[in-house]
Amino acid sequence: MLIINAIGFSQSGKTTLLEAITRHYSSQGKLVAAIKDIHGEEFQPDEEGKDTWQYSQAGAQLVVGRGPRDTIFHWSRQLSFLELVGKVVADVLIVEGFKDEQMPRIVCSKDSEELADLVDSCTYCISGVISEESTEYEGIPVLNAERDLPQIIALVESHSVVCE
Amino acid sequence: MLIINAIGFSQSGKTTLLEAITRHYSSQGKLVAAIKDIHGEEFQPDEEGKDTWQYSQAGAQLVVGRGPRDTIFHWSRQLSFLELVGKVVADVLIVEGFKDEQMPRIVCSKDSEELADLVDSCTYCISGVISEESTEYEGIPVLNAERDLPQIIALVESHSVVCE
Repeated sequence: MLIINAIGFSQSGKTTLLEAITRHYSSQGKLVAAIKDIHGEEFQPDEEGKDTWQYSQAGAQLVVGRGPRDTIFHWSRQLSFLELVGKVVADVLIVEGFKDEQMPRIVCSKDSEELADLVDSCTYCISGVISEESTEYEGIPVLNAERDLPQIIALVESHSVVCE
Repeated sequence: MLIINAIGFSQSGKTTLLEAITRHYSSQGKLVAAIKDIHGEEFQPDEEGKDTWQYSQAGAQLVVGRGPRDTIFHWSRQLSFLELVGKVVADVLIVEGFKDEQMPRIVCSKDSEELADLVDSCTYCISGVISEESTEYEGIPVLNAERDLPQIIALVESHSVVCE
């Protein structure tokens, strides 16, 4: 990975230069990433006209903004679930909304009609709005996030995926 | 890494459940990350009240939003330069604004007064606004991002850091 570093005060032409270099390499089919250190201002990667957006426009597939209190990585594509998991370093990974991944899951629902669509053999626990009136569905425990958290945690630890 | 997966339709209580689980583990000092698949809507990690923001509030140190066309990782802290570089996979990495890192650099400036503060023994090229009127400063070439791009690329490739 070739690392190209430019510094300079505000309005000195850094971004113009680095955009030109980004265009040069991305037009050759190279995978270009850009990291920008942001002092004081809030980082908003999606805002049109901002420097970070300009790097995306110039062909950078990953733009990183580092502010005083947070750091944002912005890929201009949808990463696959496996890519996502491969990039995360944590003790616990919370996953929400990946319906098509075959792995142990908790199903949340408002009522039993919704459950019929979502419960499968990977489902070890049911929660959400339905837990205000039910405690069991087809042999699967229905647990409330506030009242039954200890039982939920016990199920999570005996059923969830552990990935090194 | 323990992976906990919840699915369900909108307003079913997924985020309430996963926030409670996030609070449970983060209060134990565990490093928690949250990944959310977002269908259709635009992902704005910083907006107050959004689900992704709620995971940060519940103690998740990394929140990931995956939309149809982009993917955003949001750490609630400033990553170090070495951490950033370690997380990037690319052919070319553009780095802007990291004044304190000791590595080969291009200095951009509006005038020669600014150069006095920024040029050091790591500086192999000068560019930016000053390149409209100068071509050399203390033996270092001053090159224009549009007019002199081939020379800039040649200098970049002979001076920049290459990191495997």
